[in-house]
Amino acid sequence: MANEENAYSFTTKATQHIKLNNLGAEGFSMYKGGRLAEVTLAYESWGELSPKADNAILIFTGLSPSAHAASSEQDPSPGWWEYMVGPGKPIDTNRFFVVCMNSLGGCHGSTGPGSMNPETGENYGADFPGLAVEDIARAGYLLMQELGVEHLHAAVGSSKGGMASISYAMQFPQSIEYLITISAAAHALPLTIALRSLQREIIRSDIAWKNGRYSSGEEPLTGMLLARKLGLVSYRAADEWNAKFDRAKLSAEKLTGKAFQHEFEIENYLEYNAQKFVHSFDANSYLYLSRAMDWFDISEHGGSIDAGMSKIKVKKAQVIGVTTDILFPLWQQKEIADSLQRTDTEVDYIEIDSVNGHDAFLVDSDHFSPVVRRFLDTTVVVSQE
Amino acid sequence: MANEENAYSFTTKATQHIKLNNLGAEGFSMYKGGRLAEVTLAYESWGELSPKADNAILIFTGLSPSAHAASSEQDPSPGWWEYMVGPGKPIDTNRFFVVCMNSLGGCHGSTGPGSMNPETGENYGADFPGLAVEDIARAGYLLMQELGVEHLHAAVGSSKGGMASISYAMQFPQSIEYLITISAAAHALPLTIALRSLQREIIRSDIAWKNGRYSSGEEPLTGMLLARKLGLVSYRAADEWNAKFDRAKLSAEKLTGKAFQHEFEIENYLEYNAQKFVHSFDANSYLYLSRAMDWFDISEHGGSIDAGMSKIKVKKAQVIGVTTDILFPLWQQKEIADSLQRTDTEVDYIEIDSVNGHDAFLVDSDHFSPVVRRFLDTTVVVSQE
Repeated sequence: MANEENAYSFTTKATQHIKLNNLGAEGFSMYKGGRLAEVTLAYESWGELSPKADNAILIFTGLSPSAHAASSEQDPSPGWWEYMVGPGKPIDTNRFFVVCMNSLGGCHGSTGPGSMNPETGENYGADFPGLAVEDIARAGYLLMQELGVEHLHAAVGSSKGGMASISYAMQFPQSIEYLITISAAAHALPLTIALRSLQREIIRSDIAWKNGRYSSGEEPLTGMLLARKLGLVSYRAADEWNAKFDRAKLSAEKLTGKAFQHEFEIENYLEYNAQKFVHSFDANSYLYLSRAMDWFDISEHGGSIDAGMSKIKVKKAQVIGVTTDILFPLWQQKEIADSLQRTDTEVDYIEIDSVNGHDAFLVDSDHFSPVVRRFLDTTVVVSQE
Repeated sequence: MANEENAYSFTTKATQHIKLNNLGAEGFSMYKGGRLAEVTLAYESWGELSPKADNAILIFTGLSPSAHAASSEQDPSPGWWEYMVGPGKPIDTNRFFVVCMNSLGGCHGSTGPGSMNPETGENYGADFPGLAVEDIARAGYLLMQELGVEHLHAAVGSSKGGMASISYAMQFPQSIEYLITISAAAHALPLTIALRSLQREIIRSDIAWKNGRYSSGEEPLTGMLLARKLGLVSYRAADEWNAKFDRAKLSAEKLTGKAFQHEFEIENYLEYNAQKFVHSFDANSYLYLSRAMDWFDISEHGGSIDAGMSKIKVKKAQVIGVTTDILFPLWQQKEIADSLQRTDTEVDYIEIDSVNGHDAFLVDSDHFSPVVRRFLDTTVVVSQE
C-alpha cells in the first residue's frame, strides 16, 4: 500500500471511521512496548444504542474479515457473518446495538501497517510497532468509549476474535457483562505457530515484499497467494473435502498445459479462493495480525491461564468449539471453559459437531445459530426488563 | 543439478548402481505414456541371497529417503530405518536378503530429473516424463530381476513406499509372497493433494526454479526450504509438538533481530530440519515424486479399489496405520485392509497408537519393531524350512 488512501480502500459504503480522541499525549501504547501517535478505527454498526447504553455487543473478527459482518441499508451486500447478525437473527439487531470493528493493524479502514505514520509522513510498513491481541482488544474498548458505551453487554469473537474477546474481558472486567468465544485459544500451540510462521515466511520470501516497503501495484501477490492457500488448508477439515472433492479432476478446458499444472478440483478451489483474497488484503497487515495470534498467551497475565482468567468477571460466558477444528482444537475450548469455571465464571460450554473445521462459524448456520441465539436470549439487558 | 555427476552426488559409499539391461528397444515405458531410453537404479543390500533366491525383501521408500536404509560394513553411518533393518532386527538380515532401492525419479543415484537424457545429452529437468507410483514399483521389479530374484519374499513400504509395495503386488502378483504396507493409501485424498500441490507450487514460484532448468549451485533453495517446512508440519502430530515444544521461546542469542524473526523453538526446529534437507535433495525430483503420490489411485486398475486389490495374490499382508497420522489417516489403512480381505487376501491389520504422526515408522521403534518382527517371523521361506 503506497499511501494512506490505499490503506482505506478495502472498506464498504457502510464503514465508519473514528479517530480516537482519548489517547492522551503519549498516543496508543502497545502491549509489546511500541506506540502509535494516532489511531483510526473502522467499524460498522447495526441496531440502536439504548438510552442507558447497555445493549451494545462488540464483535471481534478473525484474522482477515472487515467490519462488514452483515448487510445494512448503507451496504446491502452480504457480510461475512450475515446469518448471525441482523433483525431477528441470533445476534438480534432489533434488541442489540451491534458493532463490528476492523482490527487494529488491519487493512479495512483501521490504522495498520498500510497507514501513514503521522510522525514521518510515510507509511508504516514493517516499521509498524509489534501488534498483540491485547492491543486489538484495547482498541475495541476505546472505540466503544468513543461511541458512548462504557459497558458492553457482550463481546463476541471467533478465532483471533475469540482471543480478543477474552482479552477484552480480562483487561476491562468492569466494562463487560457477557462473553462469547468461538474456536478461540488461551494460548497458541506449536502446530498453529508453525503454520502461521510458515505463511509469514512465504510472504517475506517473495522478493516483492521488500522488507515491507512494497509500493501500491507491486505487492507480494505470489507470496500472499501461497500463504493464503496454506491458511485455507488449515481452516477446513479433511472429511469435508473428501465429501466435496474426493479425487474429482479438472475438465480439459481448465488445464493450463504448463509443467505441474493443477489437475484436481481441490487445487482449483484453493486457487480461486486464494486469488480472491490476495487482491483484498494487505501483506503487511497479514504479517502483523498473524504474529499477534502466535504471541497470545493468557498466562502472561498473572503466571498461569487460571490467573489470567480469574481477572474475568462476566455474569456468564459461552465457549464454543468444533469437533473437526485442527487449528484451535476442541481441547483448547475445554481448557478455556474449565479455567473460567475454576475461576468462578459460569460457563455454557458447547461442542459443535460440524464438518467445516475451524471455519465452521463462518458457514455452519445450522449448528451455530441456535446455540448463540439461546445464550443471548438468556442474557439480561437491564433497561429492557 | 547441472550434470549427471551431480545427480549421483547424494549417494553413500554402500550404494550400488545397476543399469537395467532388460528394457528392450523401447526403453522403460511409463505408466502415463512417457519413455526413458535408459534406467539406472541405485540400491543397497544387506544379508545374503539364498541359493534358491527365495529370501529377498524389497523396501520401497517414502518420498525422500535414499537407498541407505541401514548401516553396513561399506557404510557404517546409520540408515534412515536403522532400527528396523539389520542382523537380529525386525527385518532380519541374518535371515533375509534385504534390498532398498532409491525410487525411480529420485536424486540418490537412480535415474531422475537430474540425470542426463541420453537422447539429448542434457539433463531431463522438467522434461522428465510424468512419473507414477506404478513406474517406481515396476523399476523395483526390474531391479530384482537383474539381481537374480524372480520372486520376492516380501515387499515392504511406508508412505509413498507403501503405495509402491501395493502397486508391486498388483502388477506382479506371481512374483511376491508377502506384503507389508505402513501408513499407505489406496488413493490420495484432497487434503494431501492440497498439501503436496502447495509444496510444489512453492518450489515452482521460486524464481530460481526456472521451469526446472536451474543450474548446479543455483537451485531453488528458498522454495525447497519452505516446501519442506510444510511437509514437516504435515508429517508430525500436534500433540507431539505440544509435549515437545509447547510455547518454548528461543534464547536471546538465537534471535536474528530481523523483522518477523523466528521467536519460538518450533520455528527453529523447522528451520534446522528443512535446511538439512534442501542441500541433499533435488527440487525437480521432489516435484515428480510428490505428484506421483497425488496421482496414485488403485481404482484406475479395474474400476474400483476392490477390483485393483483383487489382483493381489500374496499369502498374507500386514497393513499398519498410526492413530495420529493426518496425512494417511487410519481409516485409509482400514480401507486397504478391508479391501484386501474382501478380495480373499489374509490380512494382519495393526493400528499403532503413536504420538509421532505420519513419520512414526521412522522413529517409533518401540511400537513398530515388535509388530513387523512378529509378522515376518510367521512368514515361510521354503528353502529355510
